[in-house]
This record gives sequence, structure tokens and C-alpha cells, in this order.
Amino acid sequence: MNAMKELWEHFNEIMRLYYIEALLGWDQQVNMPKGSVKGRAEQIALMRSLIHSRIKSDKTGKLIKDAEKLDGLSKIDLAMIREAKREYDQATKIPDELVSEIARTSSLGHIEWEKAREKSDFSIFKPYLEKIIKLRIEFAEKLDTGPTLYSTLLDLFEPGATYDWILKIFNGMKPKLVKIVDKLNSVSDKPNQSILKKNYDPEKQWQLSLDIIKKLNFDFNTGRQDKATHPFTTSLSSIDTRITTRIREDYLPDCLFSTIHECGHALYQMGFKEEIHETLLAEGCSMGIHESQSRMWENFVGRSKEFWTYWYPIFQNAFPENLKGYSMEDFHRSINVVEPSFIRVDADEVTYGLHVILRFELEKMIIEDNLQVDELPGLWNEKMEELLGIIPPNDREGVLQDVHWTSGFGYFPSYSLGNLYAAQIYKDILKTNPSLPQDYEKGEFSNLLNYLKENVHQYGKIYKAPDLIKKITGEDLNPDYFIKYVEDKYYPIYGI
Amino acid sequence: MNAMKELWEHFNEIMRLYYIEALLGWDQQVNMPKGSVKGRAEQIALMRSLIHSRIKSDKTGKLIKDAEKLDGLSKIDLAMIREAKREYDQATKIPDELVSEIARTSSLGHIEWEKAREKSDFSIFKPYLEKIIKLRIEFAEKLDTGPTLYSTLLDLFEPGATYDWILKIFNGMKPKLVKIVDKLNSVSDKPNQSILKKNYDPEKQWQLSLDIIKKLNFDFNTGRQDKATHPFTTSLSSIDTRITTRIREDYLPDCLFSTIHECGHALYQMGFKEEIHETLLAEGCSMGIHESQSRMWENFVGRSKEFWTYWYPIFQNAFPENLKGYSMEDFHRSINVVEPSFIRVDADEVTYGLHVILRFELEKMIIEDNLQVDELPGLWNEKMEELLGIIPPNDREGVLQDVHWTSGFGYFPSYSLGNLYAAQIYKDILKTNPSLPQDYEKGEFSNLLNYLKENVHQYGKIYKAPDLIKKITGEDLNPDYFIKYVEDKYYPIYGI
Repeated sequence: MNAMKELWEHFNEIMRLYYIEALLGWDQQVNMPKGSVKGRAEQIALMRSLIHSRIKSDKTGKLIKDAEKLDGLSKIDLAMIREAKREYDQATKIPDELVSEIARTSSLGHIEWEKAREKSDFSIFKPYLEKIIKLRIEFAEKLDTGPTLYSTLLDLFEPGATYDWILKIFNGMKPKLVKIVDKLNSVSDKPNQSILKKNYDPEKQWQLSLDIIKKLNFDFNTGRQDKATHPFTTSLSSIDTRITTRIREDYLPDCLFSTIHECGHALYQMGFKEEIHETLLAEGCSMGIHESQSRMWENFVGRSKEFWTYWYPIFQNAFPENLKGYSMEDFHRSINVVEPSFIRVDADEVTYGLHVILRFELEKMIIEDNLQVDELPGLWNEKMEELLGIIPPNDREGVLQDVHWTSGFGYFPSYSLGNLYAAQIYKDILKTNPSLPQDYEKGEFSNLLNYLKENVHQYGKIYKAPDLIKKITGEDLNPDYFIKYVEDKYYPIYGI
Repeated sequence: MNAMKELWEHFNEIMRLYYIEALLGWDQQVNMPKGSVKGRAEQIALMRSLIHSRIKSDKTGKLIKDAEKLDGLSKIDLAMIREAKREYDQATKIPDELVSEIARTSSLGHIEWEKAREKSDFSIFKPYLEKIIKLRIEFAEKLDTGPTLYSTLLDLFEPGATYDWILKIFNGMKPKLVKIVDKLNSVSDKPNQSILKKNYDPEKQWQLSLDIIKKLNFDFNTGRQDKATHPFTTSLSSIDTRITTRIREDYLPDCLFSTIHECGHALYQMGFKEEIHETLLAEGCSMGIHESQSRMWENFVGRSKEFWTYWYPIFQNAFPENLKGYSMEDFHRSINVVEPSFIRVDADEVTYGLHVILRFELEKMIIEDNLQVDELPGLWNEKMEELLGIIPPNDREGVLQDVHWTSGFGYFPSYSLGNLYAAQIYKDILKTNPSLPQDYEKGEFSNLLNYLKENVHQYGKIYKAPDLIKKITGEDLNPDYFIKYVEDKYYPIYGI
């Protein structure tokens, strides 16, 4: 058999093991009884070891080497080899002991981080964080794919990205974001959020969330939505994508926007071309591009006036008491508040980028500049003041808020890159489909989805993110589109 | 490491793969979107092949051989070796091609059987049935564990059972059952079933089913109930057992007794002693013993007067309109109707045994006496007339009703053995706990469960069924207990 074909099939099997592991995880979060954790943990560990041993096997190495020698490989074949190599390199360069040591420390660190956050006491988490940093530096040294250690870690989530590249982008937008936030913050007539904080029947919220994603063309024939503590999206095969949401009775946006956000991820996962199904390429091209999809649906579409022209009467009908006396414009303003706040996950789409820049700058110092962990809480607060003009009252609302550092570094920038990719792509969509927002007013979203399928979704991981954005929009990632989008949207909302 | 310890660990891993396969199946029946079948089928096939290759590996053979040589093995170790050998023998004696051929034919046969049943046209299913018979005979010849071919197949579900042993039991009870059915059937004042066939709110049925199994001490910390087309029980680890039920709006008993039946299976799976968790011994000792547990809870408990002394007022409260004017005695009679009927799965606990005897006699002729498939429909109807006095109007309600022959032979007797084991064990329980039925009147079921845990559940597969029944009751399986139970219960209900 042709080495290329063999490589595809070898990774088909590995992908199926990944999907099975994903089911073990999905079930644990959605259905599994509380007392069943121990058995499940053993099963997940077993699947991981089966996957790991297959990836690092001599067979993988040989198939990649043989496939590379072939002539006339298609673009997809070449992408497949590239991704197989990524997996193989990581599995062979990192000793198994280091993998287990990181897993063990992360798992312990997670427990201690929860305690530390609960008590707002950084000293509890400190020794684990120090160990994770040491291990992740060792990991980056061994992997050694980027020009610097932090770049190596960033590349895991944003293939092709480097520290310098992201730094340039973030440095360009930082002062602009600070200025916009200041400007919005100085307006006295701020949107009223009390409308969102009434008692909203959970059953009705759930039904509306299903109605919305149905309209957004979420495919219930190959997907489903459930409830879970943390909203997430997972694929259990190339034709089985599941999302979760959560419902807060006293806060309408939680379920609503979690659902739309995850639906955005899911539409991506549902849109890969069949040729790459059940392969390493059936995945988002980078975490940033993946976030661009969830955020485009959540913010660009789901928080637009046109979207609510269609949905607000339906919501008014579902919650007549709560929404009585509020116009669609009131509601639209209430879900588009910009306000400096301490917690990243609760931040609006404008201040969000500043939360990420703070973490990006700290991570660089942690990984490359020997920053002492002791200094982190103070530095965190200093940067909060510099970027958002507020100082967290305690570490719980400061340095201890995120779970990410219990396992590693380099993920945060993708969140913000998602916003930037979204703005640049959306701008391009509007160029060719200027009447798109009028679709939303009619509850019609398939033109947007078709564009995204055609230009983004179908390709999965075939292109790298920097190539994909250039292919779609004709230029490199440019944060100015996001700045422009923010100004055009929020200045009118704030009457500026 | 000690070979015995290694054997345990080797099979721990195999069990985990089985549990993972079980999750893939559970999810498919409970949650999976309709369009996701193809990906899931590949995953299940992959898990099967991983399990199969581990079981038939030289490692398994060597570990068994080495362990067998050890001195001072415990009873549990010996049982473990016995079960490991069962698995190993089957995996090594049956060629992989035959396994795949059976799987393929079964899968095709299943599709054609559905068509045949739909159209009530036996000729559609005939060629597949012929092929399955040929393959299963070849399978039995290769496996060759019993004194005869059919015994070899029976032993797969009822370890230690032979055709002669079952024949003697069935022949003993056949005329007695026929006599009882005739006698009950000749009574003119039959129970009124119309009370069960009203409109029963599905949500209330569901809630009551949960209330009941809570009272029966189903452990929701390590288990859950869901809805599915076919009620079933599955374990996804030794501490994760799930049951399903189904609800018919116009027929109360379906959900009610499916739930209690599956709960009986689940209580067994939940009761294995920790020492055998995640091993081959964490399974019912035979299909018959497993059925004895589900049927004891469903019929001996769930259809008893004492059970309804507690539950009927609660049901009356839930369905005041439907149950108005009916006494508990009316209701109790309505759920204990004995009546010759065509369909096995709808049969009552008395006629049920005759449905099984019919299949047992036919299977023997199919596997050992070269019965021509052409003759099956006619023979089926003849036996129906002989045993139950009725002739199916068509093959759909006759020979085509059961799915089992699409994949194999030998399963049916276990269903009936379940009733016999249940009666003999229950009689023993009442001897030491004569006041047990009074517990039910108070909604108290833990004394029964404790007895079963102590005497049946904890042992899993450590004992073989014939040894277990002797250990518990002091004698071999004796169908007279079941006959006596039936007479004592039904003659009064029918005013005889």
C-alpha cells in the first residue's frame, strides 16, 4: 500500500481513539453519576496511553518518512504529513516521565488552585505554580519548535505564531483599546443591565436556546445540546458534535450567549469537508480561528441590533412580565455594556483584549525572564491598573481567577486573536454580502454560514491560520479591523 | 510479578475496554444523534478489535498457564482463571474470519428480518437464517465445549448448562404449566385490564418510575435512568450502572415494569464485592441468574399485593381521574392477567415459560437435527397450538417475532430459567424472612436487597449457577418451586 494511504489510515484509527476519549469526557461532564469518577479516570488514562503509544510508535515515524519521499502529493496530503509530524515530534521529543509529571502536577495543582482561589490565598497555589513553570520550561526546551521558549508554547495553540508576531499585534491595539474603554467609560448615560437580572424561567431559557441554534442552522441530525457546569463544544466523530450550555435563573445572558458561542464552535466542527473527516485535519485551524467563529456568532451576530429585531419580540412573548416596557433598543444596549471589571470570563468584547494582553505579558516574563512567582500578584494588580484603571480587591479576583496556569501557558492570546480574526473576516463578508444584517432581521442566517463554510470551515487544518486569513481577506492579520468594528458599534450605543 | 497478579491486571485493562465499548453502545441508544451512526460504528468495531486482540494474545495464554501452576490459589483466583480461560478459548478457537462472517451476516440478517417481519414474509429472512444456522453450527463445532452442539451454544449464556439438563427441567414443568394456563383460562370472571389502557401523563409516569427505584435502593450516586426505545441495563464500570425505560402514554405497565425489571438487573450489577470490581467476575453468574433478579423484583415483588398496598394510593394521587373507582385489588388483578397470546415479550409470567419451551425445542432441531428452515413457520404454529392452544394468524406474530435468531441460538432458555431460579431463591428468602412482604406494605425493600446482596449479588461470577443455587437453597434447581409459586399466586386472583 502507498505510504500516504497508510499514514491516513494509521491516523484514522488514532482519531477514533481521540473521539472515544472525547465521549468519555463528554459523558463525565453531562451524564455520569457523581460516584463513578474513579472508574472513568482509569478509562480515560487507558485511552490516553493507547493514543500516545500509537503516535510515538516507530510505525508513525516510518510512515511519515516514507510519505515525505513521495512525489505529486496534494495540498491536503502535505497538510496531513505536517500535522502528523507535529504530533509525532511532540510525542517523541517529550519523555513519557515528563508527560506524567506534568499531568500529576497539573492535577494536584488544580486541587490546590481551587483551595487557593476559595480562600483568596496565593501562597497555597504558589509551590505548584512554581513546579508547573519549571516543568513547562523543560517541556518547551525539549520541544524546541519556536524561536524562543514562549513562542514554542504559543505555537501549540496557534500554529505558526511567535511571541514577536503576537507582541506586535497586541502592542498596536493596546493604546487604542485603552482609549476606547476610557471614552465609553466617561459617558454618564450608561446602558441599564437590570433588565437582564430578573427571574427568567429556566425551561423557557432552554427552549429558546434550542430555537435560536436551530435558526442558526446547528445540525441536530449530527449534534445535540445538553446542560453542563461549564459550556463547551466537543466532537465525538466527524459527524457528531455536541455543545453544552448552562442556565442561570437570575441572569438571562448566561445561557443565551453560551449557547450561541458554543454553536459557533460547533458549526465550524460540523463544516469540515468530507475528504478530511476522521483525520487530524478535521479540527480548527488554530484556537484563534476557532474562537473567531464562536465570537463572530456570539458578538458580531448575537449582540447586533438586527439579530434582536427578529428575536426580541419572541423573547418578549416568552417573558412578558420581565420585558414589559423595555424597547428592543433598551435590550440591545443592556447586552452591550463596556465596563472595566476584574474577571476575564465576564468581560465584554472591548475590555476582553486588555485582560488577555495582561496575561500575555506576564506569561512571557514567567517563561523567559525568570519572573519570580512571588512577584506575580503584585504585578498582576499593577497591570490591571495600567490597562483597566482598576485594582482587584484580592487575589481571588486577580491572579487566582483563571484555571489555565494549573496546566500550562500560551493559551490566552488565542482568545483575543479570535476577536481580531473575526473582525477581519466579518468585514470581508460584509464587502461581498452587504445585506447580510438584513437577513438577521428575518431570522435568516444561512448566507453567513454558507460564506463561513466555503471560506473557513471546510478547510479544517489544511491551511495554517496566517495563510488562511490572507487567503480569505487578501492581507495579513490586522487588528485595526477590530478597533474599527468596536468604534463603529459602541460609540453609537453610548451616544458618542 | 506473580502471574496471578499479572493476569488480574491484564484483564483489568480488557474490562476497561469492555466498559468503554459499553459507553459507546449506551450513548448510541440514549443520546447519539441519528446521523452519527457511521462514525460510531467504526469506533465500536475498533474497540472490539482491541479487546479481541488482547484476549487472544499469547500473553493471555501464557499468563493463564503460569497462573494455573501456582499453589494456594483462592477460590476467587480460581474463578478468575476459569473465566479468563473461557474468554481465551473462545477467542483462539474461533477463527477471526468466522467471527467477522457471523457479524456481517447478523447485521445484514437484522435488516432483512426487520423487512420480513414488517411484511410478515418469512421468505425474505429465510436465506439469512439459513446462513446464520450454518455459521453457528460451524462456531459450535470449533468451540466444542459441550457434550452436543446445542449444549455448546447454551453454555455461552448459561455456563455449565447442557441440553439434557434443561430438557429435563422443561419437560417436567411443561404439562404442569399447560394445565395451569387451561385452568385459569376457563374462569369466566377475568381481571379487567382496561384500567391500564387509559391516557397516563408521560411526565408523571417518569417521575413515579424514579420514585419507585429510589425506594428499591437503586444507587443514583453510581447509576442513572434514561429513556430509550428498548429498556436495558448496562455497566460502564463497576461503579457506574445505567438503566433505561420507555413510556407508553396509553399503557401504564410498560414504563412501570420495564423500570422495575431493569432495576433488578442493576441492583445485581451494583452489588458485586469490591474485590472483583473491574474484573471478569464483575458480571452476573449466568444470564438465568441475572434474569432471576430482574424478574424477582418485577414479578414477585412488583406485582404483589403488598407492593401495591404501599404504591396504589400514590398512583391514585398521581392519576386521580384514571384510577377513580378502582380498588387496589382491582388494580392488582389487572396487572396479573394470565392469557395465551402470540408475542413472547408481551406474555405473562405463567405462559412465558411455554413460549420459551417452544423456542428451545425448535433450536435443538435447528442446530442438531438438520431441521429445514422451510419447515420452521409451520412447526412454530403447530407447537403454539399444542402449548398455548392458539395459532398465530401470520408469521409476523409467529416465527418472525424475535430478533434473537438474526445473530444466534441458545439464549431463550435463560429467560425461563430466570423465573425458576427466582422462585427457588424467593422461597428460601421467605423461609428466613417470613415478614418480608409486610416490608413492602411500608415501602421498605432493603431487607430483600440485603439478602440478595449477601447471597447472590456480591459473588458475581465466582460461582457457577448450579453451584450458587445449591449454596443458597441447599438443593439443585427445581422447577416445582416456580409451579407452586404460580399456583399459590394465581388461583386466588382467579377465584379458584
